[in-house]
Amino acid sequence: MGLFSRDIKTLDDLFVHTLHDMYYAENQIAKSLPDMIEKASAPQLKRGFKTHLEETQNHIARLDEAFRMRGVEIEGVDCPAIDGILEEADDVAGEVDDKAVMDAALIAAAQAVEHYEIARYGALIAWAKQLGRNNIASVLQKTLDEEKATDRKLTEMAETAVNLRAAS
Amino acid sequence: MGLFSRDIKTLDDLFVHTLHDMYYAENQIAKSLPDMIEKASAPQLKRGFKTHLEETQNHIARLDEAFRMRGVEIEGVDCPAIDGILEEADDVAGEVDDKAVMDAALIAAAQAVEHYEIARYGALIAWAKQLGRNNIASVLQKTLDEEKATDRKLTEMAETAVNLRAAS
Repeated sequence: MGLFSRDIKTLDDLFVHTLHDMYYAENQIAKSLPDMIEKASAPQLKRGFKTHLEETQNHIARLDEAFRMRGVEIEGVDCPAIDGILEEADDVAGEVDDKAVMDAALIAAAQAVEHYEIARYGALIAWAKQLGRNNIASVLQKTLDEEKATDRKLTEMAETAVNLRAAS
Repeated sequence: MGLFSRDIKTLDDLFVHTLHDMYYAENQIAKSLPDMIEKASAPQLKRGFKTHLEETQNHIARLDEAFRMRGVEIEGVDCPAIDGILEEADDVAGEVDDKAVMDAALIAAAQAVEHYEIARYGALIAWAKQLGRNNIASVLQKTLDEEKATDRKLTEMAETAVNLRAAS
């Protein structure tokens, strides 16, 4: 985005900006997940990450659809937030020296990603509705529901198995 | 943290690492809030951010308490996630050219911060319980409850007033 200009003048501009943001974020997440799948040890967690990679591909397709519905071309943007969240995940994983503790760290990292997405899609949906674009809101709501479900599944995995193994 | 060593061997190590992470994050948030208070126009939002700055000071004090309970000294760590989230908030705010749209952007940025904290405190509390440190879990639960309440208040502010003004 233009660093030397003030490009966001309307709520619609903010909406389109944030849509770009999420497009970049989802693509970075899709690139990171294979590494997380590889690092995970618990079969349930590995499977969970694989499923989420498929979901993430769908989320990207839904964002494509949202851009089409809004009638704008996708442009490249920087998204320091997701870069930072993924960098931190990588840093921590690089320091862990135990498989079970690694699984606990991976779940926590994935939940930080999920929560970032929950916040962003929540805002996007509220703005889409306010702008009278209920069709886009409906498309993005499907993704938000999946992000929340993934977050719940990760909590359950952590609390019923992974943390227990990591503490033993 | 040691980039060239594998320092996290146990769940307790991961817990202490993440506690440091949040200590850094809460301090960065406390430094960012005065700027958000200044940029906010809606009196309700300005007040909300002021209240959250006071809460954030309490969250830092609670982390101090958690470190004392665990018996470790606080060390400086990098936390690329919160740096990225706050950098993105700053970048977007720098591009917004309308007071009402700025309020909508500030709420979304604050909710990204809240969700990061919700994810991190959620993990910390689950780990503390698993490690038999229910006293620390109770202290951190108070903060988590406040972060969730702040997130809900921000959603309400956005959906009942701020987004409407931003779209008009």
